[in-house]
Amino acid sequence: MRMAELSRESGVPVATIKYYLREGLLHPGERTSPNQARYDGTHIQRLRLVRALLDIGGLSVATAKDVLAALDSSEVSLHHVLGVTQYGLPLANPEQADEEARAWAWATLEKLMDERDWECEEGSPVVESLIGVLATMYALGYADFVSVLGRYAEAAENVAEVDVRYIADLPNPESIVEGMVVGTLFGDALLVALRRLAQANVSATVFDTDGKVSRREAE
Amino acid sequence: MRMAELSRESGVPVATIKYYLREGLLHPGERTSPNQARYDGTHIQRLRLVRALLDIGGLSVATAKDVLAALDSSEVSLHHVLGVTQYGLPLANPEQADEEARAWAWATLEKLMDERDWECEEGSPVVESLIGVLATMYALGYADFVSVLGRYAEAAENVAEVDVRYIADLPNPESIVEGMVVGTLFGDALLVALRRLAQANVSATVFDTDGKVSRREAE
Repeated sequence: MRMAELSRESGVPVATIKYYLREGLLHPGERTSPNQARYDGTHIQRLRLVRALLDIGGLSVATAKDVLAALDSSEVSLHHVLGVTQYGLPLANPEQADEEARAWAWATLEKLMDERDWECEEGSPVVESLIGVLATMYALGYADFVSVLGRYAEAAENVAEVDVRYIADLPNPESIVEGMVVGTLFGDALLVALRRLAQANVSATVFDTDGKVSRREAE
Repeated sequence: MRMAELSRESGVPVATIKYYLREGLLHPGERTSPNQARYDGTHIQRLRLVRALLDIGGLSVATAKDVLAALDSSEVSLHHVLGVTQYGLPLANPEQADEEARAWAWATLEKLMDERDWECEEGSPVVESLIGVLATMYALGYADFVSVLGRYAEAAENVAEVDVRYIADLPNPESIVEGMVVGTLFGDALLVALRRLAQANVSATVFDTDGKVSRREAE
C-alpha cells in the first residue's frame, strides 16, 4: 500500500508517519520510484506499537527507539525488551526523604523481597519509586501502614500473573510489547479505581451506614 | 498549650494554623485573654487530619471542609464521611470517548458489578474514572483486555479488605478518615509500583531471559 493508504488503515496522519520514518521509529517502505514507497502489514503493526509507546506509555522518543532497537535485535531476550519498556513508563517518585527514612524504606523493601522471593534491581525506576513512597510515609509518621505491605505485594503478584499470561498469549513480540504498555498503563488506572469501588463496598459492610456510630465504636 | 507550642508539637507553621482557623478547618482554642487562646490534643489531632486531607489527599479546602463538617455532624455515618472523602481524591479521568465506547464501558462495568455483587453510584468520580478508562481502551482497540478485568477486581477487593480492616482498627473517627486518605493515596503508589516489580519477576519465569526467542515462541 502507499503512504495515503497506510495513514487511512492505521489512523495515523501522514505527517506523523513521515516524522516516525525520519526518527527511525518506523522502518522504510520498499521504494518503488524516487518519490514513492510501498508499505505493508509490518508497518501497520509497528505504527500501533509506536503509538502505544508514545501516546499511551508516555515514553520519550529516545526511549521508544531503545525499545524498538532491542525488539529488532537478534541478541536481546523478550524479557529484556519488556524491562527496557518498563523503565520508560511513568511512576510516582516523591522527593527524597532524609537518610533515616530511606534506610528504613530499604530495610522494609528488602524484607518484602525476601518474603516473596522476588529480586529487584537497585536504581531501577520501580525500586526508586517504592523507596521514595515508603520513605515519605515514614517521614510523615505513617510507618505503621507497612504492616499491610505483604498483602499488597500478594495482590500485586496475582495481578502480574494475569498480566504476563495475557501478553504471553499475544501473537508476536511486537504485540507483546504493545500489550505490556497498554495493560500496564490502563491497568494501573483500572486497578486504582476498582480498589476505591471495592473500598466503598467493603466499608458499607464494616461501618454502619446510618447514624453516627460505627460498628467498631459500638462494640 | 499556646499557639507557638501547638505549632512546634504539630510541625505546622503558625501562619498555616491561623489560616486553618480563619477557614474553619480547625476549631478555635479556648480563649484565655483577648489575644490568646489555649489549644489541646484535639487541635493536634485535627491538624494531622487537615494536613492529610490537603497535602496528601490533594483535596480542595472546600471539600476538606465538607469532610470535616460530616465528621463533626452527629447525624452522618462514618461510612458516609469516608465516601465524601473519597469523592475528593484524585483519579485518572480520560477525555470522553464516543457514545458507542461509553455504552460498551457501561455494559462491561455492570457485568462486573453483578459478578462481584458490588454496588456503585452513577456519576461518582470512581465510576466516571472507570467508564472513561474502559471507553478509551475500547476506542483504541483494546477491548480484549477486559477479559482480565474480573481478576483485577478480585485483587482490588483483597486490597480493599486489608485497607478497611486497617482503618477500622484505628482509635477514633478522625484517625480513621486520616488513615483512609493516607492509605488510599500512598497505597495507590505502592500497589502500582509493586505490580511492576511483580511483573518483572513473573516475566523472568515466563519468557526466557537469554537469547531472543521467548519460551512461548519456542513452543
